[in-house]
Amino acid sequence: MSTTVVSKSPALITLTTDFGTADWFVGVMKGVIAKIAPHTRLIDLTHEVSPGNIQAGAFSLMSAYRFFPEGTIHLAVVDPGVGSQRKALVVQTTDYFFIAPDNGLLSWALRNEEIKATRVLENDYYFLQPVSNSFHGRDIFAPVAAHLSCGVALSEFGPSQDNFVRLEWPVPRATPRGVQGEIIYCDRFGNVITNLETASLQPLARYGIQVVVKGKRLCSLAQYYGAVPTGKPVAIFGSSGFLEIAVNGGNAAKRLGLRVGDRIELTGSP
Amino acid sequence: MSTTVVSKSPALITLTTDFGTADWFVGVMKGVIAKIAPHTRLIDLTHEVSPGNIQAGAFSLMSAYRFFPEGTIHLAVVDPGVGSQRKALVVQTTDYFFIAPDNGLLSWALRNEEIKATRVLENDYYFLQPVSNSFHGRDIFAPVAAHLSCGVALSEFGPSQDNFVRLEWPVPRATPRGVQGEIIYCDRFGNVITNLETASLQPLARYGIQVVVKGKRLCSLAQYYGAVPTGKPVAIFGSSGFLEIAVNGGNAAKRLGLRVGDRIELTGSP
Amino acid sequence: MSTTVVSKSPALITLTTDFGTADWFVGVMKGVIAKIAPHTRLIDLTHEVSPGNIQAGAFSLMSAYRFFPEGTIHLAVVDPGVGSQRKALVVQTTDYFFIAPDNGLLSWALRNEEIKATRVLENDYYFLQPVSNSFHGRDIFAPVAAHLSCGVALSEFGPSQDNFVRLEWPVPRATPRGVQGEIIYCDRFGNVITNLETASLQPLARYGIQVVVKGKRLCSLAQYYGAVPTGKPVAIFGSSGFLEIAVNGGNAAKRLGLRVGDRIELTGSP
Repeated sequence: MSTTVVSKSPALITLTTDFGTADWFVGVMKGVIAKIAPHTRLIDLTHEVSPGNIQAGAFSLMSAYRFFPEGTIHLAVVDPGVGSQRKALVVQTTDYFFIAPDNGLLSWALRNEEIKATRVLENDYYFLQPVSNSFHGRDIFAPVAAHLSCGVALSEFGPSQDNFVRLEWPVPRATPRGVQGEIIYCDRFGNVITNLETASLQPLARYGIQVVVKGKRLCSLAQYYGAVPTGKPVAIFGSSGFLEIAVNGGNAAKRLGLRVGDRIELTGSP
Repeated sequence: MSTTVVSKSPALITLTTDFGTADWFVGVMKGVIAKIAPHTRLIDLTHEVSPGNIQAGAFSLMSAYRFFPEGTIHLAVVDPGVGSQRKALVVQTTDYFFIAPDNGLLSWALRNEEIKATRVLENDYYFLQPVSNSFHGRDIFAPVAAHLSCGVALSEFGPSQDNFVRLEWPVPRATPRGVQGEIIYCDRFGNVITNLETASLQPLARYGIQVVVKGKRLCSLAQYYGAVPTGKPVAIFGSSGFLEIAVNGGNAAKRLGLRVGDRIELTGSP
Repeated sequence: MSTTVVSKSPALITLTTDFGTADWFVGVMKGVIAKIAPHTRLIDLTHEVSPGNIQAGAFSLMSAYRFFPEGTIHLAVVDPGVGSQRKALVVQTTDYFFIAPDNGLLSWALRNEEIKATRVLENDYYFLQPVSNSFHGRDIFAPVAAHLSCGVALSEFGPSQDNFVRLEWPVPRATPRGVQGEIIYCDRFGNVITNLETASLQPLARYGIQVVVKGKRLCSLAQYYGAVPTGKPVAIFGSSGFLEIAVNGGNAAKRLGLRVGDRIELTGSP
């Protein structure tokens, strides 16, 4: 008879919100989870999604979710419609669970995932009571994630639903000289990330990629930031799988006046 | 004979400071705790209390502490008087422990709590040596919280004390037309939280609440932010149990020029 | 036969980066670690090192590393040369492990440490595949730290190396009237930290230390911030072991126009 205790991996919940960290909002969500599920691990993805910016939250989730262990519960709350009639969802894919308001926040992470089940969060047995009108992160999303991490079945949380609100993914389009995309995210360093997927650009890359913005050639493609002199713009295949534009040692968004939504054209050299 | 190991809930310490996260201060406090109490969980409430703002720290603690599991140790350091003669305390209530400088920081969280014991932190056996004059978070508060989380008795930390420094709680007052309160906190979204407790306003709410600021009617009460058009002000019963003023999709503090300390009058509908 | 399970201290990794917390970068590193090493604890030192500022990162690490338990793995990524030919290292000292790019980031933490082994991270068996050119934090540093925390031998990660890139430590120099140093770090409160080590100043302190900046006497030494009136400058022996200049209740860097690199002279009382 063995006394060896093989401890399994603890359950894991990630948190993505626009709550910031200046107030107690995120801490309280974690308290609610710890009370229900004291052994569940918590990892912050980010709480600095700009307030109400569903697209930025969706891109963050899409870029991050697949680096976590199987079974991870991704809890996301960017929820400008809190208290209104918008629904709250739990979605199960092959490897993960996602819990979020049904406002498009999950749609980009779920683009390439096989969806196993979608449930509407309606069973208030798993909510914190009383449920406030302005903080469902604390009262609905956190306790549901905690109960799910303890093994409560998905079907417990509410009725099945066939679909969910989807943000449109901006599809790049072919131009006479190459392909046109747009800036979809700007990170803390001022690097701007486009919707141009690295994989699809490999053929073009063989001929040397030029980046054209507002009709002017901006820079060409390099292997890494430092391949151009300090202060110079450069395009690289970014770590999220998309073409990025950076300034070596500087802030590309500020230096080049680039913003989310701006068009970017790629052409083969010259 | 069973070999099943039922692991208890791990001890839990929350951290609330004005240390920010740009430096190593909070990380070092966690290192000190991990060295003494490697199995104790840590949850950040916030480290972005504005420097030295005891009132903001007190409101954050008050809004958050009760959402944590029984036995949680709430460690709070907003400590402009560090190194001076101000005392350091551990307070035990029915469900929680609080560790903080004796400067008012705990007084609002403790307003509704039954206090079981208060001890002054004097036993330097539980301090990190040498104790600096400017970082008691690392040298006194963190190690005491860690030892407490390991089961050291409260009486070990120092002598009993009957009272502690209290911040005055601003009590709303009746006006000919309703009730007057004040703004007591401004959150990351620019929502301003008043000292007007939701529970006490329910009777008034039946007649329709109007919010009056500087003699002018500002907005009325609604169920949730989105009940008014984008850009419009609205009052709601907030998630912390107080009336809040928000701008749907905007920053009420900036848009309406509201600040902590500003007077707010509520009246029944005209 | 006993069923008592004495659980050892969990492995611990600290994280120090300039990635900020607005994006998913740090969260993803933690996901990568959790996938490989689900029981390893993670503590953030700071992620707000200013972008690319190796000196600030080095000072943060130096100030913090020794407060952590023996065996802690300190993972640091301030890496403006990511993707270039700069090497990546794991360094073992008597009590700790350090993992970082070989760009000087570790040099101040290692000043007083006995180095047991230094290995270049070259064995891509322990990397995340494919390795990106711009996010080695995710693809190299995080998985190596995770594997190390699970007990993989240092020698597994790559070949031994004798030395590493060192930042010069600015050594104070004697002046006719005392000693001259410089400002080496500015913290979130606006307190500026000098390179003047407290221990070496104790003899001078007996005669009363005066702080002279740009030829003018600025303030004298006190025991704690509050020893001078609100708004007045004061020098104290800081918690990191260096002389600091503060303004009681204010921001010394802003109020006094002090910056990293500024010269500070200390003299005995007039």
